[in-house]
Amino acid sequence: MSTMPILTDEQLTPEAAAVFAEIRALRKTDFVNNFWRVLANDPPALKRTWESLRQVMGPGALDPLTKELLYVAVSMANSCEYCIRSHTAAARARGMTDAQYMEMVSVVAMAAETNRMVISLQVPVDAAFLPEQPGPFNQV
Amino acid sequence: MSTMPILTDEQLTPEAAAVFAEIRALRKTDFVNNFWRVLANDPPALKRTWESLRQVMGPGALDPLTKELLYVAVSMANSCEYCIRSHTAAARARGMTDAQYMEMVSVVAMAAETNRMVISLQVPVDAAFLPEQPGPFNQV
Amino acid sequence: MSTMPILTDEQLTPEAAAVFAEIRALRKTDFVNNFWRVLANDPPALKRTWESLRQVMGPGALDPLTKELLYVAVSMANSCEYCIRSHTAAARARGMTDAQYMEMVSVVAMAAETNRMVISLQVPVDAAFLPEQPGPFNQV
Amino acid sequence: MSTMPILTDEQLTPEAAAVFAEIRALRKTDFVNNFWRVLANDPPALKRTWESLRQVMGPGALDPLTKELLYVAVSMANSCEYCIRSHTAAARARGMTDAQYMEMVSVVAMAAETNRMVISLQVPVDAAFLPEQPGPFNQV
Amino acid sequence: MSTMPILTDEQLTPEAAAVFAEIRALRKTDFVNNFWRVLANDPPALKRTWESLRQVMGPGALDPLTKELLYVAVSMANSCEYCIRSHTAAARARGMTDAQYMEMVSVVAMAAETNRMVISLQVPVDAAFLPEQPGPFNQV
Amino acid sequence: MSTMPILTDEQLTPEAAAVFAEIRALRKTDFVNNFWRVLANDPPALKRTWESLRQVMGPGALDPLTKELLYVAVSMANSCEYCIRSHTAAARARGMTDAQYMEMVSVVAMAAETNRMVISLQVPVDAAFLPEQPGPFNQV
Repeated sequence: MSTMPILTDEQLTPEAAAVFAEIRALRKTDFVNNFWRVLANDPPALKRTWESLRQVMGPGALDPLTKELLYVAVSMANSCEYCIRSHTAAARARGMTDAQYMEMVSVVAMAAETNRMVISLQVPVDAAFLPEQPGPFNQV
Repeated sequence: MSTMPILTDEQLTPEAAAVFAEIRALRKTDFVNNFWRVLANDPPALKRTWESLRQVMGPGALDPLTKELLYVAVSMANSCEYCIRSHTAAARARGMTDAQYMEMVSVVAMAAETNRMVISLQVPVDAAFLPEQPGPFNQV
Repeated sequence: MSTMPILTDEQLTPEAAAVFAEIRALRKTDFVNNFWRVLANDPPALKRTWESLRQVMGPGALDPLTKELLYVAVSMANSCEYCIRSHTAAARARGMTDAQYMEMVSVVAMAAETNRMVISLQVPVDAAFLPEQPGPFNQV
Repeated sequence: MSTMPILTDEQLTPEAAAVFAEIRALRKTDFVNNFWRVLANDPPALKRTWESLRQVMGPGALDPLTKELLYVAVSMANSCEYCIRSHTAAARARGMTDAQYMEMVSVVAMAAETNRMVISLQVPVDAAFLPEQPGPFNQV
Repeated sequence: MSTMPILTDEQLTPEAAAVFAEIRALRKTDFVNNFWRVLANDPPALKRTWESLRQVMGPGALDPLTKELLYVAVSMANSCEYCIRSHTAAARARGMTDAQYMEMVSVVAMAAETNRMVISLQVPVDAAFLPEQPGPFNQV
Repeated sequence: MSTMPILTDEQLTPEAAAVFAEIRALRKTDFVNNFWRVLANDPPALKRTWESLRQVMGPGALDPLTKELLYVAVSMANSCEYCIRSHTAAARARGMTDAQYMEMVSVVAMAAETNRMVISLQVPVDAAFLPEQPGPFNQV
C-alpha cells in the first residue's frame, strides 16, 4: 500500500492530467501505471520527473534496449522491486529475451561480488586506469 | 593502500601463477591489474573468481560492450571507484564513446532517483507488470 | 513475519516490562509498536536502543519535526518500509503536511540522483568546500 | 580525479555556458563548483539537472535550511563525500550551527541502526501505521 | 512471485538436474529450495553459483557456524529477506541459539550506526591502522 | 580531512575527557583513535556511542573474535574504509589470521553475489524457512 493515494483520472489536477495525456500519447496506450498515479499527488514533481525520464530514455548515443537493460540492472543493484518489474516489462517490449535477462542477472551479481572484494581489500586504482589529462583535470 | 599486499609475479604461488598466465593469454597483454594481485593472496579465491568472471563476461546472449556497460553501471550504483575505472577502461576498449559514457551516467542517476521515489512512496506493483504464470509459479 | 516472536506484555521479562512502561509514559499512550515487541527478545538491547533513541530524538539543537523528517528521509534512503511508515506517522503527529511529505520525497530522490552522478563521475571536492583548519585537523 | 574533464569556462558549449550564467546569477557568485564543470561534458544533462535542482530546492512547503539538512542527511546515508561537503557548506550558509550538524549526524546514525534492526528482524508494519484509505488506495 | 519460473524437477535440463543431484547428496535431503529452482532457468549460472558456494562455504580457516553467521550478517546489511531467512535456518542447523542471533543483530546494527558516523564525519584513518608494508605495497 | 576537528586531549570538555579515560582504562593503552576524537565534538554522542559499543561488543553469547569478524564483514558490506581498517586491527589483536581474513572476504563477496541474484529474481521465501509460530506471531 502506497504512503499517498493512487489517484484515479478523476482525481487529477489539470497540470497532472496534462502529463497523463502526454504519457498516453507517447506510449500509445491508455494504461498509466501506479508510479505516475502516486507521484500525481505532487503535480510539479510528476511533470519534472516525466520530462526528465523522457529526455534521459529518449533517442541518444545508446540504443533503447541497452538503456532499458541499464535501468533494470541499476534497479536490481538498488533493490527496487517495482522498478525491476516495470523496466523488465519495458525491456521485454523492446525485445529482451529470457536468455538475455538471465545473463544480465549474472553480470549484476558478478559485479556485486567483485565490487565487494575490491572494497573489502581496499585495492588501489592502477595508474593505467586513470585518464590521461591534458590540462583541465590538473586544475583541481 | 590495500589491506593485503599487492603481490609481484615473484611472490605468487604456482596456483596463482597459473591463473596469471591465463589472464595474460586471454587478454593478450602482460599487464595484470591490482585486483588480481591482491586477490592472489588467496589462490583458490583468485582461481574461482577469474573463472567465474571469464564465464559471465564471455560470449553469450548479450554483446560484450553491453555487458561491460552493465558492469560499469552496477559499479556506479555500488560506489566502487576501482570497478568504475577498470571496467570503464574495458568498455572504452570495446568502443564506448564519451557520449555513451555520459548518457549511461544519466540513466544510472535517473534510475537512482525514480528507484528512491518508488521506495519512498511504497508504490505497489501494477498487476500488468507481474508475469503470467502457468503452473510452476503457483506452487509457491 | 518477524524472525523472532512479537512479544505480548505477558511474555516480557521484568527488564523489558520496565522499558515498555517508560515508552508508555513518555508517549502518553498504551500502544507499543512491533519494533519494541520484537526487540524485547533481547532486553538489554531493548533498553539500550530505547535510551539512545530517546536521547537522540529528545530536545536539542534541531526542532522535533526536523528530526523526524531527517529520520524518515534516511529511512527512505535505506529502503526500510517499517521505518518510513512509523516515522512518517510520528512526523504527521508533529505537524507534517502532505505537501511537506511530497516535497521531502523529491529532495530525497534528487539527492539520490546527484549523489549517483558525483560518484559515477568521481568529481573531486572543491577546495572551497573543505573546512579551514587551524591546527587539530593538521595533526592527521 | 574525475572520469571526465573538469571544464573551464572557455571549454563550455553555448548551451552549457548559458546554464553557468544562470547558476552565477541565482547564487550571486562567480564560483561554479566542480560538479557542474564535470556535468558540462553533457550539456543537456547539465541543463536538466540544474533546472530540476533549482525547482526541488527552491521555495516550497519546507524551509530552505530544512531542505539542505535533508540533502546532507541523504548524502551521508548514500556515502557521497562530495555531496556531504558541498551541501554542508550550503547548510552552513543558511545558518546551520556546529551543534545542529553534530545532532544531525546522530539522527542519521541512529536511523541507520534502527533501520538495520528492523530489517534484520523483519518486523511487520503495525496496522496503526498504515494510511486509512478511502477509495483510491483500494483499487490496487 | 519470482521474475522467472520456479522450476519443478521435471522441468530441469540435464545439466541443471545434475546440479540438483549434487545439492541433494551434499545436504543429505531431498529438499531443494526456491533459489536453486529459479536459478535453474540458467543452467550454467546454476552450476557456477553452486560450485562457488560449495567452495566458499566448505571447510577452511573459519568454522562453519562463523561462516554462516557472516553470511546472515551481510544479508542483513544488504536487506535481503530471502537470504536472511535461508541462512538463518542454516545457522540454526549448525547450532546458533536465539541469544546468539539477537546478539548478532545488535552487532550488525551497531556497525551500521558507527559506519554511518564515520562516513558522515569523514574521519581519516589513523596511521596506526594502516598495514606496515615492506615492498610490494609500495609499488603502487 | 574530517568535517569537524579531530580534538586533542587539551580540547576536550570534562564529559568527553571522562569517556577518553574509560576508553584508555578498558583498552589498556594511551592511544585514542580519530573516531572518538571527532565524535568528541558532541560529548553526549561520544558517551552514548562508547557505552553502546562497550555493551554490544562486551562478553555475551558470541565469542569476541566472532563479534569483531561480524563487525568487519558489515563494514565491508557498508563500504566504510575506516571501519574495515580499525576493526580489522581489532580482529587481528584477537587472533585473526591472514587466511581467516581472506576467507571472510570471500564469504562477504559471495553473499553479495547471491543476495543480488535473489533480489534480482525476486525469489519468494520457501515455507520451510519461515519460523513456526505458536501464538504471538499470529497477532500481527
